[in-house]
Amino acid sequence: MRYYHGGKPLTPFEVAKDQLLQVAQPITRTEQVTLTECCHRVLAEDIFAPFDVPPFDRAAMDGYAVRSEDIACASSERPVALQVVGTIFAGDPIPSWRITEGTCAQIATGAPLPQGANCVVPFEETRKEGERVWVLKAYPHGANINERGMDLRAGQTVLKAGSFLAPAQVGVLASVGKATVKVFAKPRVAVIPTGTELAQPGSPLREGQIYDTNTYTLTALAIAHGCDPLPMEIVPDEEQALQRALDNALERSDMVVFSAGSAVGARDLLPRLLEQQGTVLFHGIAVRPGRPTLAAVVEGKLVVNLPGFPASCLVMAYVMLVPVWRKLARLPQWQPVSLPAQLAHEVRSPEGLRQFLTVRVRNGMAVSAYKESAAITSLADADGYIVIPEEVTLLPAGSPVTVHLF
Amino acid sequence: MRYYHGGKPLTPFEVAKDQLLQVAQPITRTEQVTLTECCHRVLAEDIFAPFDVPPFDRAAMDGYAVRSEDIACASSERPVALQVVGTIFAGDPIPSWRITEGTCAQIATGAPLPQGANCVVPFEETRKEGERVWVLKAYPHGANINERGMDLRAGQTVLKAGSFLAPAQVGVLASVGKATVKVFAKPRVAVIPTGTELAQPGSPLREGQIYDTNTYTLTALAIAHGCDPLPMEIVPDEEQALQRALDNALERSDMVVFSAGSAVGARDLLPRLLEQQGTVLFHGIAVRPGRPTLAAVVEGKLVVNLPGFPASCLVMAYVMLVPVWRKLARLPQWQPVSLPAQLAHEVRSPEGLRQFLTVRVRNGMAVSAYKESAAITSLADADGYIVIPEEVTLLPAGSPVTVHLF
Repeated sequence: MRYYHGGKPLTPFEVAKDQLLQVAQPITRTEQVTLTECCHRVLAEDIFAPFDVPPFDRAAMDGYAVRSEDIACASSERPVALQVVGTIFAGDPIPSWRITEGTCAQIATGAPLPQGANCVVPFEETRKEGERVWVLKAYPHGANINERGMDLRAGQTVLKAGSFLAPAQVGVLASVGKATVKVFAKPRVAVIPTGTELAQPGSPLREGQIYDTNTYTLTALAIAHGCDPLPMEIVPDEEQALQRALDNALERSDMVVFSAGSAVGARDLLPRLLEQQGTVLFHGIAVRPGRPTLAAVVEGKLVVNLPGFPASCLVMAYVMLVPVWRKLARLPQWQPVSLPAQLAHEVRSPEGLRQFLTVRVRNGMAVSAYKESAAITSLADADGYIVIPEEVTLLPAGSPVTVHLF
Repeated sequence: MRYYHGGKPLTPFEVAKDQLLQVAQPITRTEQVTLTECCHRVLAEDIFAPFDVPPFDRAAMDGYAVRSEDIACASSERPVALQVVGTIFAGDPIPSWRITEGTCAQIATGAPLPQGANCVVPFEETRKEGERVWVLKAYPHGANINERGMDLRAGQTVLKAGSFLAPAQVGVLASVGKATVKVFAKPRVAVIPTGTELAQPGSPLREGQIYDTNTYTLTALAIAHGCDPLPMEIVPDEEQALQRALDNALERSDMVVFSAGSAVGARDLLPRLLEQQGTVLFHGIAVRPGRPTLAAVVEGKLVVNLPGFPASCLVMAYVMLVPVWRKLARLPQWQPVSLPAQLAHEVRSPEGLRQFLTVRVRNGMAVSAYKESAAITSLADADGYIVIPEEVTLLPAGSPVTVHLF
C-alpha cells in the first residue's frame, strides 16, 4: 500500500533519515573552554604529554624505600634489619641523599623514590625498632613503585582531536596540566514555532489559542544532544513573517527547525517558501506519527519542518533529529537504553508506514501511551517507544517488543 | 580469604554501598526555574491543568467542518453538496455564526470548530466548485476533531511532585502555560583534593609534584548525575588545613568528597580527623581498585574519602557515589548502558574482593584497559568496566561478560 501527502508519495523513513545525515556536516567552529566546562564536549586538538607521567619514580604504597638486593633473603623467620636514614612525604622534592647498602627511608604513597632505592616494602611487612626497621619479606626490583613515564611518556599523544570527553578524559587533560582546552563549538539550532494560534507559556490565553509546547520540548532535547538551541519567537502564519524568521534563523544558526506549518492546508505557506528558497529533500514521510515532516536545504543549511502536534513533533525529533544533531555536534552515535517487554494488548499498524508507538512499561508489560498526535499526554505518560516496521500490520497481545527509553 | 586495611577487616562492597544509601537523604531545598532550564530536573510541586487541554473543540486536519448527519450518505458515486459559509484559521476565535443544515466551513488544522459542526471532512475527500463543496465520503460525529479536554481536564493533576522532567514532561508544563516551575535544588557536593604533592592544572609543576586530576573527574561526574559540585582548593597534608577545609565544606555543601589521604600512612590525618568529629561508617572496602575508601557521617552529612589514585578514585565514584548522588538529587536510578562482550584474555581476580576491571571493547571483545590504580590511562583508554564477583578467581579467555559503559 502506498500513502500520499499532498498528492506526492511518502518517502520511506530510512531514506528520509539518510538524506538528512548526508547533508548534515560536522561542525568546524571551535572554542576554548576550561577544564570544568569541557566534560561531554568534543576535543578539537591533539593533546600531547609535555612530560613523563608520573614525572618521577614514586612510591605506590606507604612503607620503606629500600634496595631490593639488601632484602633478597628477608622472611618473617629471618628478618633483615635496615637503618632508617630519612622520611619522604608526598610533595617533597627528590632527596639530595642516597639509599646505600643497609639503609632505607620511610616513604609515603606518591612520594618520590630516593636515589639508590629500587623498591618499596609496605609497612605491614616491617617491624620498627628505634632507628632500625626489620623487613619481614623480600620484594623484587621495582615492587610497589610507579615508574616515571609508566602512565604517559613525554611527547606521547594522549588524546586525539575528535575524542569525546567523558569524566575519565577530563582527568587525562588535568593529569597533563591543561587548564583550558580547544573543543568543537556546539551547533546552533534555531527552533521556530509557527502558528497564529500559539501563545507563549506565562502569557494569557485568548480564545482559539493554545500554548506553544514544541519550542520547549525541542530545545530541551537539542541541549541533551550537544546542541546550543536558539528558541525564537512565535511566527504567525504570514508569508513575510515566515520569510523574516527564516532569514534571521539562517544568519544566526547552523540548522533550522520549524514546528507546525507543514500540513497541506490553506495557510501552509512554509513548504512553498522553502521550495522557492532552497531544495526540498522530502515532504511527507511514511511514518506514524509525523507524516507531514518536511526537510530542505537552504543556503547550504538544513531546514526541517516538523509537525505541530506535540507528540508527532517530539517523536520525530527523537528518531530523526537526534542522529542529525549528534552528527553536527560530532558526538558518538546515541544508544538509547532499551528494555525488553511484552505487549500488554494487540496493536494494529497501517501497512507501509513505520509506526513509533509511545508506551508505558509496568512489570515488564508495554502498554500504549498513545492518545492522539495532538495529545501531549501521549508523551507525558510514556517511558519510551516501540518501532513497528512497515510490513507489520498486527502485533498480537503478548508479543515481545523492545522499548527504547526516552 | 579475608583482607584487611590498617588491621581492620574490609567491608563488603554491597554493605558499604547500602550504608551510604541509608544515610543519604533526598534533598528538600527547592528553587524556581524557567521552562528552558527545567529539563532533567525533578519537579517539587504538583502541576494541575488550569483549563481543559485543548481548551476548545478543534480541527485535527485541514478540511471542512460539517454536520455529520448532512453527509451520512455521501460517497464518491453520490457526493453531497454543501454551501461554504466561511473560513476558520488556527488562532481565530470561535466564530459567532453557526453551521446549519446544508452548510459547512473551510477549516485549518488547530482551528476552533464552529458551533453546529460536529466533524471535519479532510480536503482529500472533497471537491470544490465555486461556493459549493462536494463531500465524497461519510464521516461519523467527532471524526477528525480534537475534543475540548481530550488531553487534559481542568483541575486534573498532570505531573506529580517528584517527577523527573524529560523533554516530554517539559512539554506538558508548557502546554498548561507554566513559564516557571518549582524544582528540587541540586545537591551541593564539595570536592576536596588533598595532598602536598598536588599542583593545579595550568600552574607550573615543581619537583615531586603531580597535577590534581580527581577534582576534575569527580566534578564532571557529579554534574552528569544531577549535582552541583563545589570544587575546593588543594589542601596540604596538615591537620589544621584539613580541619578548616572540612568545616568550610560542611557549611557550604550537602555532602563532602575528599580524594586521597585515606591510606594508612605517616601523614594520613584525614581518617583520624573524621573519627574524632563524626561516625565512621566504614574504612576499607573489599574491592579492587578502591580498597582504602572511607565514609563517615559528620554533622549529619556524608563525608566520603576516596583513594587518591585517579583510576581507583573514578571507578569508586562510578560504582559507589553515583547511586548516592542520584538519591540525594531525587533522580531515577541510573541504568548504565551495557554491552555484551567476550573477554579477549584470561583475567585473574583475588578471592574475596569485588573487582571492577576497566576494559576497551573492540569487535565485541573486551580487553583490559587496566594498567595500575595510579594510571590515568587505565581510564582514558577504557570504554567501561566489568564486574568480577568476590567468589570468582579466574575468568578464562572467551568468557561472556557484561561491559557497563562509562
